[in-house]
Amino acid sequence: MRQPSHGGNLAWAAAVAGCSADAIVDFSASISPLGPPQSAIAAISSQISNLRHYPDPDYSELRLALGNFHQLPIEWILPGNGSAELLTLAGRELAQAATILITPAFGDYYRTLTAYNARVLEFPLLSAESGVLSGIQNLLSNATCFQSAKPPNAVAPQHALNAPLPLTAPSTDYALLLNNPHNPTGKLFTREAILPLLSQFALVVVDEAFMDFVPPDEEQSLIPVVQEYPNLVVLRSLTKFYSLPGLRLGYAIAHPDRLHKWQLWRDPWPVNTLAAAAAIAALQDEEFQAQTWQWLPSARQQLFQGLTSIPGLQPHPSAANFLLVETQQSTVQLQQKLLQQYQILIRDCLSFKELGDRFFRIAVRSHSDNHRLLTALNTIVNSP
Amino acid sequence: MRQPSHGGNLAWAAAVAGCSADAIVDFSASISPLGPPQSAIAAISSQISNLRHYPDPDYSELRLALGNFHQLPIEWILPGNGSAELLTLAGRELAQAATILITPAFGDYYRTLTAYNARVLEFPLLSAESGVLSGIQNLLSNATCFQSAKPPNAVAPQHALNAPLPLTAPSTDYALLLNNPHNPTGKLFTREAILPLLSQFALVVVDEAFMDFVPPDEEQSLIPVVQEYPNLVVLRSLTKFYSLPGLRLGYAIAHPDRLHKWQLWRDPWPVNTLAAAAAIAALQDEEFQAQTWQWLPSARQQLFQGLTSIPGLQPHPSAANFLLVETQQSTVQLQQKLLQQYQILIRDCLSFKELGDRFFRIAVRSHSDNHRLLTALNTIVNSP
Repeated sequence: MRQPSHGGNLAWAAAVAGCSADAIVDFSASISPLGPPQSAIAAISSQISNLRHYPDPDYSELRLALGNFHQLPIEWILPGNGSAELLTLAGRELAQAATILITPAFGDYYRTLTAYNARVLEFPLLSAESGVLSGIQNLLSNATCFQSAKPPNAVAPQHALNAPLPLTAPSTDYALLLNNPHNPTGKLFTREAILPLLSQFALVVVDEAFMDFVPPDEEQSLIPVVQEYPNLVVLRSLTKFYSLPGLRLGYAIAHPDRLHKWQLWRDPWPVNTLAAAAAIAALQDEEFQAQTWQWLPSARQQLFQGLTSIPGLQPHPSAANFLLVETQQSTVQLQQKLLQQYQILIRDCLSFKELGDRFFRIAVRSHSDNHRLLTALNTIVNSP
Repeated sequence: MRQPSHGGNLAWAAAVAGCSADAIVDFSASISPLGPPQSAIAAISSQISNLRHYPDPDYSELRLALGNFHQLPIEWILPGNGSAELLTLAGRELAQAATILITPAFGDYYRTLTAYNARVLEFPLLSAESGVLSGIQNLLSNATCFQSAKPPNAVAPQHALNAPLPLTAPSTDYALLLNNPHNPTGKLFTREAILPLLSQFALVVVDEAFMDFVPPDEEQSLIPVVQEYPNLVVLRSLTKFYSLPGLRLGYAIAHPDRLHKWQLWRDPWPVNTLAAAAAIAALQDEEFQAQTWQWLPSARQQLFQGLTSIPGLQPHPSAANFLLVETQQSTVQLQQKLLQQYQILIRDCLSFKELGDRFFRIAVRSHSDNHRLLTALNTIVNSP
């Protein structure tokens, strides 16, 4: 069985740990430990008898629920089979320009950009963290220096996947694919920091798969301004916050003309009936949402402090439901020990080529699971 | 609400009929009335607690079940979010050649071919039914006569979607998209009739979405020969035979290299956990399969004869679970009367541009539902 390039591959983990998949404590997939909400489960069960019918190809009820949730007309909303499906459609658009990608980047970004032969410019976040977005701005206003010199506040970008760049191109030949909060670092960019970029790029795709974990008074979603920017696409997921990754549900928010085009690029019924019903129920479940916003900050803080106190581990501050941890030990060895001795699965960062074997990522889970991980890490790190 | 271009749009039908969607007797979607099988429902229910995990990205268990079912190594099998998702991937391949399409053709064929700017050559089935496949063969061996003269046994094809053809191209610059049994006519091509085409086309995609309705001793699937033809792709659906269109599940069978490429063109988890579980259970449900093969021939025959006896209606012989019916009345008016007076939904054929308003398609349903439709049609046709 091949080493997984994504988190959450329990079949692989169970084979390594020598136990059943059910017995694995999964810190590798950044999924809330609180869900799925009972409201969503009830909605799923109630719709099983409806599976004999095709889904409504307009997904009217679902889009209405999403429209109410975000205060948007439904024409601006396109549901998909997980945000991963919509990312693929975004990749086809991004390939029409040269795409700037902030790295380390989610592996599926490369997959979708490669699928459409996109030109990619990598812009490293970790080595230029403080001014990464202003660095991109400067980079664009000095487009001709792309390959000749380091732009201010950033290291020179590399174009990893493809052929030479058109150095004379204006900035509108460039697209930006941004992750906010950023995965795997957990960094949250402010709305104000992103807004100036919208006038500089032909297309800006902001993947907000983890934004719903940020409490309402702190969130930095671009959805409130989407109607002002026809070149903006926001991608959202419902499966992380509501713990339903097995069901597949995400959505894109963008100008209706763009979404109409995307709809013709894919099949007519991408979202299954049960996912649509679960989403409608979950969006209305304010109690579950409040519970999540109450649980996460303290659980994350406790986990962060516990990691900091372990010699050789250094977590990065995060606004999301996961933490990126720098380690002086080999992550691959740590991952193997955690699996074999404790049935605990952490996310190695081998698929993030800038990070390699000295980083791992963990989801924030319940207080007791987090404690179990900290105890296991302490024991492993302190054993000879 | 817009007129649907596919069958099974109950939201639209309910609005026209002035009743709830549940009250509609749906003859428009070609779904078995016998399912879903209890085995599949039980498998779905048992996996709801597993939705908090990502699906296995290898879909190993599902592919193993499909491999056992078809006696194929699992590398030759790619599951998808309905066969419609896989058709879109096939469209991207087909667009690399000029695609011959037998018409009238399922509307989503045009959608996916257009999505990738494919050149399309239409080859009419209805006006050249007896020799359509040998007609295609002759057409290819006389490629230069494509636009200048009628090839033997066929009318001159039109290229509906795109620019002029490269008339000097060899036949390997052509691909074939074939539907067997053919939708909407129900015509079944024999395996022997299709096999010679495999040496003539760069790529042959056979959509066998309705092949499982043909009893084992009569079926004409190309799956048994797929390992001999790297240029063959077979698309299959599990949602029609097992009545689970709301769940989305299909699969492609083709050379492993091609399927590996397709996998990189799409997101890593296209099939939801519940669909995978339902499929594994359904494939093993031999009792349900036998029931279906027992029900369909007699129910279809009864419906066929009933339609023949109604003045002005002429059904076409069909090997699938639907019948195409030629009518002297306007289908749109007939459809409206059936909805408003009987809450019965039939499939108009407006989306098949060769058929227009003088054809409709109906699924074969239970004996009592079929009787209800025949009674309603009789009353409407005989009323002034």
